[in-house]
Amino acid sequence: MQSSKEKIRFAIVGSGNVATRLVDAFASVGQKPDFLLSNSINGRQLADKFNVNLIHQPDVEVDIWLLCVKDDAINAELGKHFPAGSLVCHTAGSVSMDVLKRNSKTGVFYPLQSLSKDKKVDFSNIPICIEAQSESDLLLLENLGSLISNDVRRLNAEQRRTAHLAAVFVSNFVNYCYRIGYDLLKAEDVDFSILQPLILETAEKAFFLNPHLSQTGPAQRGDQTIIQKHIELLESWPDYQNIYKLISNAIENGRH
Amino acid sequence: MQSSKEKIRFAIVGSGNVATRLVDAFASVGQKPDFLLSNSINGRQLADKFNVNLIHQPDVEVDIWLLCVKDDAINAELGKHFPAGSLVCHTAGSVSMDVLKRNSKTGVFYPLQSLSKDKKVDFSNIPICIEAQSESDLLLLENLGSLISNDVRRLNAEQRRTAHLAAVFVSNFVNYCYRIGYDLLKAEDVDFSILQPLILETAEKAFFLNPHLSQTGPAQRGDQTIIQKHIELLESWPDYQNIYKLISNAIENGRH
Repeated sequence: MQSSKEKIRFAIVGSGNVATRLVDAFASVGQKPDFLLSNSINGRQLADKFNVNLIHQPDVEVDIWLLCVKDDAINAELGKHFPAGSLVCHTAGSVSMDVLKRNSKTGVFYPLQSLSKDKKVDFSNIPICIEAQSESDLLLLENLGSLISNDVRRLNAEQRRTAHLAAVFVSNFVNYCYRIGYDLLKAEDVDFSILQPLILETAEKAFFLNPHLSQTGPAQRGDQTIIQKHIELLESWPDYQNIYKLISNAIENGRH
Repeated sequence: MQSSKEKIRFAIVGSGNVATRLVDAFASVGQKPDFLLSNSINGRQLADKFNVNLIHQPDVEVDIWLLCVKDDAINAELGKHFPAGSLVCHTAGSVSMDVLKRNSKTGVFYPLQSLSKDKKVDFSNIPICIEAQSESDLLLLENLGSLISNDVRRLNAEQRRTAHLAAVFVSNFVNYCYRIGYDLLKAEDVDFSILQPLILETAEKAFFLNPHLSQTGPAQRGDQTIIQKHIELLESWPDYQNIYKLISNAIENGRH
């Protein structure tokens, strides 16, 4: 069993958004990965940028392999490539660790954040959701995660799936609402920046109170006059009008 | 015409969220209102707290009356109470200034932000959307607004209505998405705080790029496997399932 004092040897697999941000995060705290496994041009560039040993096959000895690959590439075919004694973890929110079909030593290391190659983030407060089959593997992942984050959490598969689903609502769907605001304003020649203070305040407020208590607006007040005006304003945006009606109804149904 | 050097004499009408935050904002920069017009206990407390002259009738002389009252209280009945020479402004996003039915000297002073009695905000970056019937009245409102904000903008009625509608999407509906995340996590015993870094990053990212370019997630990728899993996970939340389907479809329709 790995002691917390020993240096953990680990490799990152991939060269996309998650791989890029993880290499950067570990390098930023002086703990760059021992290897980067990639066969793409992006991988070569990433390895060069952070001066990480680039490998093309999983033929080295490490404690942990962090698979930063597309969800549908996480499967038994991939799982069998890695040496038997090592801990092989994927980094996906909605994939079970069992799909790698290894007899033991699989795990999950899922950073709950929207990661882009082009935008650096402060990893120190990003929740890293870990799962593994043994307590010693969990401790190993806790040690690895705590190198870059103060918020490493043990989540079971069901909890992690739910966290990923919740993330779709609070990030992807929220971004779509931003996009609607952007489009509506653009049609009236108003700059999107006018919404920035409101957007940031709304995000903060959900945690100042909680999102049940911070719900405001015409639907929460049951203000049918404004709701009708808004629905009329959206006549030429049928997708947006449908979303307006559905969420307003849901808010009205849930009033308390 | 009011020169920008003269002190603007103004009164705030009301004692709710908007009145409270405006009194606080003007007081914070040493420019408290000359009068607070209110007949409620809240009004008495607000006037006491900020040491503002409380009045019960609009029987004083000021340059501007700022009506911080409910949308449906903004009407001709209210408009006729105020002295003829003064500029009477409401602070609502979706109400025309004409509904006050005064022959002249009406306007709008709409701070585009979610305001609560209990939560102080930094007014300096809040967009204040102004409208009036003459250039001199617009200048007067610009002078008043710039006492508390660096972002006073002239918006016509249509632009302001659109900004308010956009605000419903990016604040009220976004908050509802937060609430869905909260509810889903709570059912799995995961603390809502796990979403905080993601929520703040999503809000920032919309302005780092723009919300069209920052759209990510299963629907943007066209990942039907994950979408189907999520729809199944939402079986016992029909309202949330409908919202998931509708927004995912809209995102898929708008992919580029």
